[in-house]
Amino acid sequence: MDKLFVVKIGGNIIDDEAKLSSFLQSFALLEGKKILVHGGGKLATRIAEAMGIQQQMVDGRRITDAETLKIVTMVYAGFINKNIVVQLQLFNCNATGLSGADGNIIKAHKRSAAIDYGYVGDIDEVNAELLHALLQINDALVLAPITHDGNGQLLNTNADTIAQEVAKAMSKLYDLDLIYSFEKAGVLLDVNDDASVIPLINPVKYEQLKAQGKIFAGMLPKLDNAFAAVFSGVHKVIIGKAEELHELAQGKKGTTIINE
Amino acid sequence: MDKLFVVKIGGNIIDDEAKLSSFLQSFALLEGKKILVHGGGKLATRIAEAMGIQQQMVDGRRITDAETLKIVTMVYAGFINKNIVVQLQLFNCNATGLSGADGNIIKAHKRSAAIDYGYVGDIDEVNAELLHALLQINDALVLAPITHDGNGQLLNTNADTIAQEVAKAMSKLYDLDLIYSFEKAGVLLDVNDDASVIPLINPVKYEQLKAQGKIFAGMLPKLDNAFAAVFSGVHKVIIGKAEELHELAQGKKGTTIINE
Repeated sequence: MDKLFVVKIGGNIIDDEAKLSSFLQSFALLEGKKILVHGGGKLATRIAEAMGIQQQMVDGRRITDAETLKIVTMVYAGFINKNIVVQLQLFNCNATGLSGADGNIIKAHKRSAAIDYGYVGDIDEVNAELLHALLQINDALVLAPITHDGNGQLLNTNADTIAQEVAKAMSKLYDLDLIYSFEKAGVLLDVNDDASVIPLINPVKYEQLKAQGKIFAGMLPKLDNAFAAVFSGVHKVIIGKAEELHELAQGKKGTTIINE
Repeated sequence: MDKLFVVKIGGNIIDDEAKLSSFLQSFALLEGKKILVHGGGKLATRIAEAMGIQQQMVDGRRITDAETLKIVTMVYAGFINKNIVVQLQLFNCNATGLSGADGNIIKAHKRSAAIDYGYVGDIDEVNAELLHALLQINDALVLAPITHDGNGQLLNTNADTIAQEVAKAMSKLYDLDLIYSFEKAGVLLDVNDDASVIPLINPVKYEQLKAQGKIFAGMLPKLDNAFAAVFSGVHKVIIGKAEELHELAQGKKGTTIINE
């Protein structure tokens, strides 16, 4: 099977022009085919404020009302997505930017929960066949965190989840590594010490670390997702700093999660 | 050769939700492969105003400064493009929305003129090969009027010109009809009378009409472009009302321009 990297970058890199450019240069140099899933950043909030659109929050979570959906569609699928693509082109990486509505790549449904989060999508299906066909004619695909329900509705969707679902679906066709890049150097024993990275976690080690109370609570959902991915066919999941993408891809830095 | 329609729709349809939906329903029903090129509409101006960004104008033409480029990228490649795609998906037309930067589809250069129009692109090259490959795996492609220069710069580009250049490039691979849909019923003998449509114009007839002063000055650049397209291999160009797309595609309404 061919090699495929699925890489997720978050808002803190997107908001920093110099860091983003250097990250994209490393991304362009990754060997083989690759998919980049990007999050949002602060621009959407800035534009909403400038336009006088109130951000509705419930329990600390943002509600995606109709006006907010308009703005995140513009900012995520328009501004951020095309800015990433145009830079990858500069770095000789022929990339195509897409939302989940394009080519029906990611079908989702509006979340039904006790709290109405608005136009937020939970993923039903990833069109692995079309992504595979697109990778035959592109070096890289860049996915914005916007999906659709097949009934004409766009939906705001968590970028971590998109990365995970795309990785799981594509792991049937590729030898796939999933990289979550964020602001920390990996899964840390001491949350304030980047040198305390745990290099390798397998299911046994994960149970030990949890039993010893050594995993920072905020990391638990990320790790649960990572194990869900490796249990579903993803070769390995690597968590670490965006600035160290090259080393992460080689397994020289960050935390590697495997099912062995 | 397979049939391909390249259809351009302008801002007046994009700004009218009901008209746009009915147009897209007709577009989805066009037989064979198709490419839709869309213009801008008033949303970009509304957002610029809301954000307090002054529109710079020179000789009645808008200057695309850095801030305006940000907004048109968001609105054209994000909001409008994805809203068209999600509706085409609803109408069972598997569409993918793209800018000229995606897959290096349209390379352009920043216009150099006596007046500095800002980040405005003049087209150098259309990547017909990639568009052809994309059409093998999609029913339709939706192109936003944003291109790039290959050096990391996005450029605002006239949608009429994109439609024409894409049609010319693709006419080497397809039996291609180019449809310019706008607010009039076609090329009119009397600009105030939709019933005065000239059904067919060939080069001889065009020269006669011009000599008789019967072509409205505003139509001359559109017709010159149309003839440039048919002289370059496009089978025919049809100009008419967006609401009559179905009839335009069959040559039953609007003005057809041919090289015979």
